Amino acid sequence: MQLSDDFEILFLHGGARLQNCMVPYNICTKYTANYIDTGAWSTKSFEESVLIRDSKILASSADKNYSYIPKELNWDGQGYLHITTNNTIHGTQFHNFDFTSQGVVVADMSSDILSREMNFNAFGLIYAGLQKNLGTAGGTLVIIKKELLEDLPKVPSMLNYKQHVKNDSMLNTPPVFAVLMCKLVLDWMQKEGGLTAIENRNKFKSALLYDAIDSLDAFEGFAQKEDRSLMNVTFKLNDSSREESFNLLLKQENIIGLNGHRSKGGYRASLYNQLPLTHVEHLVKVMRKFS
Amino acid sequence: MQLSDDFEILFLHGGARLQNCMVPYNICTKYTANYIDTGAWSTKSFEESVLIRDSKILASSADKNYSYIPKELNWDGQGYLHITTNNTIHGTQFHNFDFTSQGVVVADMSSDILSREMNFNAFGLIYAGLQKNLGTAGGTLVIIKKELLEDLPKVPSMLNYKQHVKNDSMLNTPPVFAVLMCKLVLDWMQKEGGLTAIENRNKFKSALLYDAIDSLDAFEGFAQKEDRSLMNVTFKLNDSSREESFNLLLKQENIIGLNGHRSKGGYRASLYNQLPLTHVEHLVKVMRKFS
Repeated sequence: MQLSDDFEILFLHGGARLQNCMVPYNICTKYTANYIDTGAWSTKSFEESVLIRDSKILASSADKNYSYIPKELNWDGQGYLHITTNNTIHGTQFHNFDFTSQGVVVADMSSDILSREMNFNAFGLIYAGLQKNLGTAGGTLVIIKKELLEDLPKVPSMLNYKQHVKNDSMLNTPPVFAVLMCKLVLDWMQKEGGLTAIENRNKFKSALLYDAIDSLDAFEGFAQKEDRSLMNVTFKLNDSSREESFNLLLKQENIIGLNGHRSKGGYRASLYNQLPLTHVEHLVKVMRKFS
Repeated sequence: MQLSDDFEILFLHGGARLQNCMVPYNICTKYTANYIDTGAWSTKSFEESVLIRDSKILASSADKNYSYIPKELNWDGQGYLHITTNNTIHGTQFHNFDFTSQGVVVADMSSDILSREMNFNAFGLIYAGLQKNLGTAGGTLVIIKKELLEDLPKVPSMLNYKQHVKNDSMLNTPPVFAVLMCKLVLDWMQKEGGLTAIENRNKFKSALLYDAIDSLDAFEGFAQKEDRSLMNVTFKLNDSSREESFNLLLKQENIIGLNGHRSKGGYRASLYNQLPLTHVEHLVKVMRKFS
């Protein structure tokens, strides 16, 4: 899906957390800002917005410990609707974006940008820290619909999208290394066959792992099946008393970084674009052995 | 000069321009913000502050095209006083900081941080983009006096120094490459003999070049002698009709990047910490030949 000429592409300093502030300062400023709460990152986005303007949570999956993506939004289409497309801690991901037809949707895609084909043109603003699928920390990709650029004479330049557009992302010396790394990653993606090939590989990798979780008695997935993330696969042991022996086996098999987020426990396998299939195959073999 | 325990050291995302916004949001918020105008970078700082709070210019050298550092301040010591210690475009630099005894001084040291010994403890807040003397673009060093950290419940986290301190500069994934580069540069400085050795070398390099400018008829320095920068040496030809032949000679002698800032014209040699003495010696030789 080609991005239309209706958009500007920016490479900005900082990470997604700075965008959490910039969005409420800049977008649809005359209206209430609306958020879907799908876990820690969306909560943090909302908390920043509350400091800046009138903001509300339209829907939340907090009632079931963020194990699903809310489907009922009740949005009147005014203001913007902010979503976090992938939730790294809970392992959930938006797979349906029909609501983009209702109004301006702002999406934090930090943890799943360019992991799959989607209609990017349907969004008002997309932002993504570069450090997951696009290279290294220290920069953020922002894709913004030109018609959303407002004249905001009271907003400082570095927080003002229109000023960044006017200055071609160079209001300040850009984070040159992060931008270069991003270019190299995009070159690599093209060489690998482009976004469709990357998406197919991501689907294959995650399906392999989810299949092991579902078919092996020892394991249980965390997220509801239809909302499972292709990027972060979260699961736990059915018998938590066996955790110590599973952890020991992982260590023996040279598998590191599989612990769940400290706020959640359990296990989490992050399958970002660059993670080779062989790593997933190895993990699945070890899980079968353990079960 | 050792930094006392009264300070916090932060490594933040972005460049100095983001600090231009953060300072007025955070420091001595109950009072007017005061600025000394010594050229483009201080003007930009002031312009951001005006958007955020009551701000005024206490002294300016605009009357003589920024060729000097104002000495008369008339500051009542309230609020903060913002200075740009080194002015890359005009080649001027503060060499006297006696006014730090009057109140809270905030210093943008982006272009001369760790180029010379000074009493860092006399400042309230020091900030510096990493890309000149400290490595590569994409991060900023901030040194802030603990007693200046205010509780600011209305300021978004990423713009709030107290939140950054609480989170140990990790509110967001830090710009890891820029921080690593900074560490490597600091290691290199220590190996070179530390700040005193670096300062002596900087003085020697700039004296060599200023001496050529002053002693050769063909050249004329831009900045007033007592305010000359150790980092950026600005000069012009006495006879501007010879510019073309000087430029040709520079090219033949493999000297690039000597053009003055596009807003100013003339010539500018930037002698940041890492520039070897041999480069300055070569330039001086070429200048003697031309003269």
